[in-house]
Amino acid sequence: MDSSSLGHCFITGGAGYIGSNLADRLLALGHRVTAYDNLSTGFMEFIAEAEKHQNFKLIRGDVLDLPALTHAMAGADTVFHLAANADVRFGTDHPRRDLEQNTIATFNVLEAMRANGVKRIGFSSTGSVYGEAAVIPTPEDAPFPIQTSLYGASKLAGEGLIAAYAEGFGLSGHIFRFVSVLGERYTHGHVFDFIKKLMADPTRLHILGDGRQRKSYMHVGDCIDAMLLAMTRAHEKVNVFNLGFDGYVEVIDSAKIICSELGVTPEFTFEGGERGWIGDNPFIWLSPKKIMALGWQPKCSIEEGVRRTVRWIKANPWVLERRS
Amino acid sequence: MDSSSLGHCFITGGAGYIGSNLADRLLALGHRVTAYDNLSTGFMEFIAEAEKHQNFKLIRGDVLDLPALTHAMAGADTVFHLAANADVRFGTDHPRRDLEQNTIATFNVLEAMRANGVKRIGFSSTGSVYGEAAVIPTPEDAPFPIQTSLYGASKLAGEGLIAAYAEGFGLSGHIFRFVSVLGERYTHGHVFDFIKKLMADPTRLHILGDGRQRKSYMHVGDCIDAMLLAMTRAHEKVNVFNLGFDGYVEVIDSAKIICSELGVTPEFTFEGGERGWIGDNPFIWLSPKKIMALGWQPKCSIEEGVRRTVRWIKANPWVLERRS
Repeated sequence: MDSSSLGHCFITGGAGYIGSNLADRLLALGHRVTAYDNLSTGFMEFIAEAEKHQNFKLIRGDVLDLPALTHAMAGADTVFHLAANADVRFGTDHPRRDLEQNTIATFNVLEAMRANGVKRIGFSSTGSVYGEAAVIPTPEDAPFPIQTSLYGASKLAGEGLIAAYAEGFGLSGHIFRFVSVLGERYTHGHVFDFIKKLMADPTRLHILGDGRQRKSYMHVGDCIDAMLLAMTRAHEKVNVFNLGFDGYVEVIDSAKIICSELGVTPEFTFEGGERGWIGDNPFIWLSPKKIMALGWQPKCSIEEGVRRTVRWIKANPWVLERRS
Repeated sequence: MDSSSLGHCFITGGAGYIGSNLADRLLALGHRVTAYDNLSTGFMEFIAEAEKHQNFKLIRGDVLDLPALTHAMAGADTVFHLAANADVRFGTDHPRRDLEQNTIATFNVLEAMRANGVKRIGFSSTGSVYGEAAVIPTPEDAPFPIQTSLYGASKLAGEGLIAAYAEGFGLSGHIFRFVSVLGERYTHGHVFDFIKKLMADPTRLHILGDGRQRKSYMHVGDCIDAMLLAMTRAHEKVNVFNLGFDGYVEVIDSAKIICSELGVTPEFTFEGGERGWIGDNPFIWLSPKKIMALGWQPKCSIEEGVRRTVRWIKANPWVLERRS
């Protein structure tokens, strides 16, 4: 894949989980990379390798600080907007957080692009925008959804802003609706919670819901493959792609894979109910047919993705201390 | 129709076009009505009759002022959130306006409801959320749309917030996707512009686009009938309804109806192009089958709606001076 057209890449959330993996990949491909991160959920450890590279620069700053963001973006050719509040579960505890960190932040990124004449944006949206999808596996043109979480609603708002800016200001937007992304540097979400709990107490695991929720995952390397492929091969004004493995596992199955990898045999208990929390979606399976039609194939199965996540956390126990 | 369950109604934008018509109707039905309006696009003249009523109160305030909004809403049973920046065409001149006045304002209304324990909201969304719809006539569950205007994107964000609050905080939401609403007190949009131009110069009319754009309209009285019907008969957590006449006219046809009503015979000139402006949608026709299944029938044809609009503006020429 020739990604040279992406040029100098500016990554919001560039010290975060997916952002830092993307930075490493882009550096390896020869790109200049500027990571913009307030380090609220990113870690300096994630960009330790990148920082050795002369083409890499970290700028500490907040996406809600529009002047700083605009200044930092000068000279960029492509923006990857990955900074976000990615906390799906606790949205109702602090509704303003999704509005500010996802919706308003995306507006700021677009305004900074406009001020700097940057014309390309890749955006980490989410399968949560489908709410409880009426069609499964869910295609990108599924029936107009009803939102079920503040997180999904805030990402949908971000998608809408990007599309409207594309139409109104001649940008090109790539919108990626992710399933849960697993792999190296993964530090939040229910798989992380399971691993953390089991490493603290290998004798028991309490699961929210009935454990039969069906979820899809993908490995971060496959996710980045797909993003770069889409951004170099799809050339509509607005390009929407589901990114996910073409299948699913039950939550209990991912818990069992984690146990197998950790070599533990806990007693499972269940909170009960079809949904683990308000806005939890009992069945997520996004159709990846559109990105596969561009030539994408996942290299990592769901099981292998879970195992690699466990191995990485075991090798980096410091994240368990620093991410509650 | 028994609307008594709506109780004390709080209308944001209650001195505006649709809001003041709704206030009059609710007062006639015996409701207590509080209009909340900053009078930026509302007019005291619109609520002159309402103000004679003991059940009516105007509170001057801005939806962006959350403490004032929360205070004003105390005691309400139902919120109609109609305050908005409804300027579809000039969104790209001031992108922040749609974000603030539509998206953030809707967030504030929901937060004020949460603080006051108000559980019901009716919301004026728009057919613009369908972008350039893939299916026409467009049903509520049309394929997941791509936004084409900042206005549509900001209303979609408002819809998402309402749905997420309904799920997360036990509200019930009624989301109304309007076509262009015509009738008494109509003071913005292309039909208003045509009337204003023709009253200033009856010899010529310049039309943006090729005049063949197909648009649907509805009369404000039919619109209010539909809103009240839906809010008393549809009881899902989130209830989405298209509101529009089941048909369309070409822009040139509505211009001709205006000319007929004014008794003028101008020369028509055209800017050309399928779209009158960035984000203009060349074909809008929302399917009203869902609201019709509840028993709604429009009382006013598109032609009659246009004629009544012209008559009202002729009888109220002051609006031409005060709405540029």
